[in-house]
Amino acid sequence: MSVHRQLTIGLFGFGVVGEGLYKILQQTPSLKARIKKVCIKHPDKKRNAPDELFTTDKNILLNDPEINVIVEVINETDAAFAIVSTALKNGKEVVSSSKKMIAEHFTELLQLQKETGLAVLYEASACASIPVIRNLEEYFDNDLLHGIRAIVNGSTNFILTKMFQEELEFKDALILAQQLGFAESDPRLDVEGYDALNKWVILLNHAYGIIEKPEKVVFTGIQNINSADAQVAIQKNFEIKLIAQAKKLNSGKVAAFVLPQFVKQDDYFVFVKNEYNGVVIESGFADRQFFYGKGAGSFPTASAVLSDISALTYDYHYEYKKLYYHKPHQLSNDFFLRVYISFDDIKYIPKEKFEWFEEWHAHEKRKYIVGILPFTELQNTTWWKENGTSLILMPDSIVEDVETRKLKKKSLELAGVFM
Amino acid sequence: MSVHRQLTIGLFGFGVVGEGLYKILQQTPSLKARIKKVCIKHPDKKRNAPDELFTTDKNILLNDPEINVIVEVINETDAAFAIVSTALKNGKEVVSSSKKMIAEHFTELLQLQKETGLAVLYEASACASIPVIRNLEEYFDNDLLHGIRAIVNGSTNFILTKMFQEELEFKDALILAQQLGFAESDPRLDVEGYDALNKWVILLNHAYGIIEKPEKVVFTGIQNINSADAQVAIQKNFEIKLIAQAKKLNSGKVAAFVLPQFVKQDDYFVFVKNEYNGVVIESGFADRQFFYGKGAGSFPTASAVLSDISALTYDYHYEYKKLYYHKPHQLSNDFFLRVYISFDDIKYIPKEKFEWFEEWHAHEKRKYIVGILPFTELQNTTWWKENGTSLILMPDSIVEDVETRKLKKKSLELAGVFM
Repeated sequence: MSVHRQLTIGLFGFGVVGEGLYKILQQTPSLKARIKKVCIKHPDKKRNAPDELFTTDKNILLNDPEINVIVEVINETDAAFAIVSTALKNGKEVVSSSKKMIAEHFTELLQLQKETGLAVLYEASACASIPVIRNLEEYFDNDLLHGIRAIVNGSTNFILTKMFQEELEFKDALILAQQLGFAESDPRLDVEGYDALNKWVILLNHAYGIIEKPEKVVFTGIQNINSADAQVAIQKNFEIKLIAQAKKLNSGKVAAFVLPQFVKQDDYFVFVKNEYNGVVIESGFADRQFFYGKGAGSFPTASAVLSDISALTYDYHYEYKKLYYHKPHQLSNDFFLRVYISFDDIKYIPKEKFEWFEEWHAHEKRKYIVGILPFTELQNTTWWKENGTSLILMPDSIVEDVETRKLKKKSLELAGVFM
Repeated sequence: MSVHRQLTIGLFGFGVVGEGLYKILQQTPSLKARIKKVCIKHPDKKRNAPDELFTTDKNILLNDPEINVIVEVINETDAAFAIVSTALKNGKEVVSSSKKMIAEHFTELLQLQKETGLAVLYEASACASIPVIRNLEEYFDNDLLHGIRAIVNGSTNFILTKMFQEELEFKDALILAQQLGFAESDPRLDVEGYDALNKWVILLNHAYGIIEKPEKVVFTGIQNINSADAQVAIQKNFEIKLIAQAKKLNSGKVAAFVLPQFVKQDDYFVFVKNEYNGVVIESGFADRQFFYGKGAGSFPTASAVLSDISALTYDYHYEYKKLYYHKPHQLSNDFFLRVYISFDDIKYIPKEKFEWFEEWHAHEKRKYIVGILPFTELQNTTWWKENGTSLILMPDSIVEDVETRKLKKKSLELAGVFM
């Protein structure tokens, strides 16, 4: 049996995650890892650790030959990428929790790992405490991954839970989330779906070997969901969740997006309340699997960082099997979505873009339609997330074959009567 | 990046798991693994594969120098161990799904792996499709694993679900499970807890580095649970589940056992219905995590076997970190359990063994008590699972400190009035 490697860590960031990590490493001597130096931005802030541990000069860490691992838990994308790429070039392995940095620089990070032969681990960057990256890497290493759906953002899930459980308005739920520390000071990153998008870009690689720039993936958040939508959900006995999903289509290509969705009461995601995350994986043999845990917060994030550090002691690295060993999958835009769209004024809705309508409803305050829309419409336009228009996927939203378009004209005529 | 190893497989067993595996390997050419020969017991049985694939001579597989992996999915413990140990001695790596064999021969298997440097993988042996062994090995590699609780037997969970959802009597639920193929032809292995016990022995090693013989672990099944118990559960708004659990005590030692337990409606395990399995892991940083999936059946089992085969292509092996790299934990018997016990006649219950009683109830047909019992009583005696006596743990059953024993006498006096 091989022997554990001794790790000497240079840590960037000493916020809640960094400090938690420092504490726990002191409590776990069996893990042969020691933080030698911590790089911080604000030297005057009071820290719960000896002064000599800290520096504001990143080069002291990056050029220290004794330091063999850089752990980076800062929140600035450009700075994080500079740190990580210098660390690798200087022969140091990396653990990172910066999802935005990883999602935006995936190609460079893969190239750097190839060139240096060094590991970059980032389990903390997606679903925090749920070991989803490692599982996709290690366990579903075959062509049988039918699909993966996930709640990857704890803040939006907290807000949606409060909108349903306590019938709070969106704005009040957001304020509560901020008060409890579940939402960023700039809540747009969470609320408008950017955080979920970055996580999904990371998971698409480990699930299907797909490398896609975040700006190319169709997404939105929960910013347009209002109490009228919540009322519709309650009437239909649904809940609303922000769900990232990828599904292998009959063509062999993959449909992927991050959008709000109505979920039925027997859906796994109804179980995922408040700030928790959940992942449902469907595969050929294993059938359906469900992983659930805390997806955000200092301790769950530090937990994932700690596990990556532990993995480095025995030279673990991602092999990117779906990308390098298998034929990587490609994204498809050749499918349709069954969508619910609520709006203030029909003038914002390009009715002719729908294949057909299945339901329409008008109320003094708010109107909605349910219909079949080509996915390309969401890719190429933005009307569906502007002017307060709220798009929510119906359950079982992906429609692969629109066999007959005859319905289209008829339903549009009917819609005309209504609209 | 390293290159996948080509695997040539000798397969033992061509039942539902073996045949499923054969089919799926044909469908996944990207996984460089091919079944060269299959050893079967009954040559006259019609098989959905070419005749030349089969043999009844195990040595043809075990002595073939081209075969570098033996996959063993047979159901006979002694034969399985003979196959696995010969395979290792002959330089072949092993994938096995035989939980009883692994649980009973753990020490020998560890020794053989050390001596040969070859891998034995057996994810299929615990919770089938849930990658729990790999996760405990790879992810919770630190001293922070507070506890693990699991539903590891799908058959008993199916029976208990039917007893609650459809108010079937135990016997009728068992017959239904057998008709649907969820219970073995000899149902005692499942129903009396032996299968869960073997799985738990395996998981105790990967969770805590504890190697214990199955016969040393306190366990029972659901054979004594009757409709009166189910009625009590319904009155208290509980459900009954067969739960394997391990918990790190304040002493640093581990409490571990497999016993039926009342669970509250907000317990994760209420979500686990029918033939599904579930695992709840509590750790210092990650907080609470929940894994859920199919724990039995041909496809979920074949899925786990396939993932092990895939892992062998890149030389994965269990490192048994908790055992070799950390200080292994020890089992404790120095704690108490809060138990519900129903019985026909008080003469079967040694009242004086209880620390105190918290509840007693008499009914014409059936009586029950709730009280605090030293764990050693379950270790050293069997009265609690004989004569139709039914022991079910209360929720939050582990009591570490019995601070005052004053209650004992008083509650016994009260009990005397009642009994």
